[in-house]
Amino acid sequence: MKVITTIEEMQTIMNKLELQDKSIGFVPTMGFLHEGHLTLLNKARKDNDIIVLSIFVNPLQFGPKEDYAEYPRDFERDRALAESERVDFLFHPSVGEMYPNEPSVKVTVQDRTDVLCGKSRPGHFDGVATVITKLFNIIRPTRAYFGKKDAQQVAVLEGLVSDFNIPVELIPVDIVRENDGLAKSSRNVNLLPKERQEAPILYRSLQAAEAAIKQGERNPANLIGIISNMITNESTGTIDYVQIYTYPQLKPLEKLEGTIIIALAVKFTKVRLIDNYITNIDR
Amino acid sequence: MKVITTIEEMQTIMNKLELQDKSIGFVPTMGFLHEGHLTLLNKARKDNDIIVLSIFVNPLQFGPKEDYAEYPRDFERDRALAESERVDFLFHPSVGEMYPNEPSVKVTVQDRTDVLCGKSRPGHFDGVATVITKLFNIIRPTRAYFGKKDAQQVAVLEGLVSDFNIPVELIPVDIVRENDGLAKSSRNVNLLPKERQEAPILYRSLQAAEAAIKQGERNPANLIGIISNMITNESTGTIDYVQIYTYPQLKPLEKLEGTIIIALAVKFTKVRLIDNYITNIDR
Repeated sequence: MKVITTIEEMQTIMNKLELQDKSIGFVPTMGFLHEGHLTLLNKARKDNDIIVLSIFVNPLQFGPKEDYAEYPRDFERDRALAESERVDFLFHPSVGEMYPNEPSVKVTVQDRTDVLCGKSRPGHFDGVATVITKLFNIIRPTRAYFGKKDAQQVAVLEGLVSDFNIPVELIPVDIVRENDGLAKSSRNVNLLPKERQEAPILYRSLQAAEAAIKQGERNPANLIGIISNMITNESTGTIDYVQIYTYPQLKPLEKLEGTIIIALAVKFTKVRLIDNYITNIDR
Repeated sequence: MKVITTIEEMQTIMNKLELQDKSIGFVPTMGFLHEGHLTLLNKARKDNDIIVLSIFVNPLQFGPKEDYAEYPRDFERDRALAESERVDFLFHPSVGEMYPNEPSVKVTVQDRTDVLCGKSRPGHFDGVATVITKLFNIIRPTRAYFGKKDAQQVAVLEGLVSDFNIPVELIPVDIVRENDGLAKSSRNVNLLPKERQEAPILYRSLQAAEAAIKQGERNPANLIGIISNMITNESTGTIDYVQIYTYPQLKPLEKLEGTIIIALAVKFTKVRLIDNYITNIDR
């Protein structure tokens, strides 16, 4: 595995591989790798000749009051994990390399952002779309892998790729969970021990909603009630949102039908967790 | 020459050429080709294996009160000209092909736009940067050619390419002029006959400024005075702006030194013309 820190070297390497008609699987991350990321790498390895992992904690996608400084980082651990996952190239640029000066352009997301996490994180998806645009131009991957845990991110990036005609295939990959159901996340380490014990209620509430849908519930408000009650009663976290939308358009709906997402975010002392359930309901 | 109207076909073709390691020269235009465009095509032909010309009047870069509907179009004439210039691929998509739905993302330009044409055309450079981002993703050129007449556009696109790490080389090409000095432009056909006779004063005023600089003038205000007086006295046009900035940063300056641009825009009855002079002044 080769660790690359400059854009120029990365582009030179990718250029050569492109001429050899190699398929490139790309997994962009902010590091502190967990099993969710490893699942993405495994999938990328199966589908492609070469895999590129990027580790870059992107300041542009953090709001001024968000956890950029506290975001967990452990490059040596990540490097060892990437090596053992047979990553070919690990792209690990500095902030100064990615943003040498105040950017003169950025990508702004016009749709799918005034709901869910976008609502409480103004500019977050602009930052995501901008860094992904840069990374796609640097890596020029054949396929790029994203976890469905950030379902809104996947929806936004599908819009980005389609509207900017970026020649890459986006591959959304299922959420990977701990044994107790908690969705894997680099931020989970910031849960207090008691909160860590409570946190699986997020997934259990989604499972309860799933069961209710199977029993015929089609009213979004009722499902939101079930979920909110469970989380409020069984955790010390504060609900940021529990919402149900069409997917990937993220438009409100009065009655469950078609492809829908039930998404939630809960704030704990030092960390805010998200989870979701996407399903298709016969019309 | 092959005329391509769909993004998919264009991407398929460019993919194949890329694998053959062909260098691709790209000239994006809004059509109604004139000698300025032909100069770009000639330069592209000299530098590259393959040349791609795009003709697309981009609605996104016209304001609601601007001349999108009146912008001159003559595809059959353009096609014949392109053929005679040995263009390999002429990309001519419809508006529906380029913007099948309300875009969910766009490029916004944060710098270099609050001056010159950007000031009176809010959103114009966002539209330019967005369509060029799309076209670069569709064509993936080695080099792209732009006329220096749109000097602010060149400055903005240099920011775009550099900040988004787009692997393309931008080649700015000198302004091509009519015999009487008027900068070639598709919009010149919209001048009234009397205005057409007056219009060379734009260039003559820039030449007067150049002469003054050679005689030692270093005060921007004095040069702006010379130019404004000439245009006001010798034409019926209304001055939109006469400005002097550093180039390509487009920052104001109190004393001429370094690389500077003198840029002007003048409104006539049905059309607004621009011209400029870029020079380097020893510090």
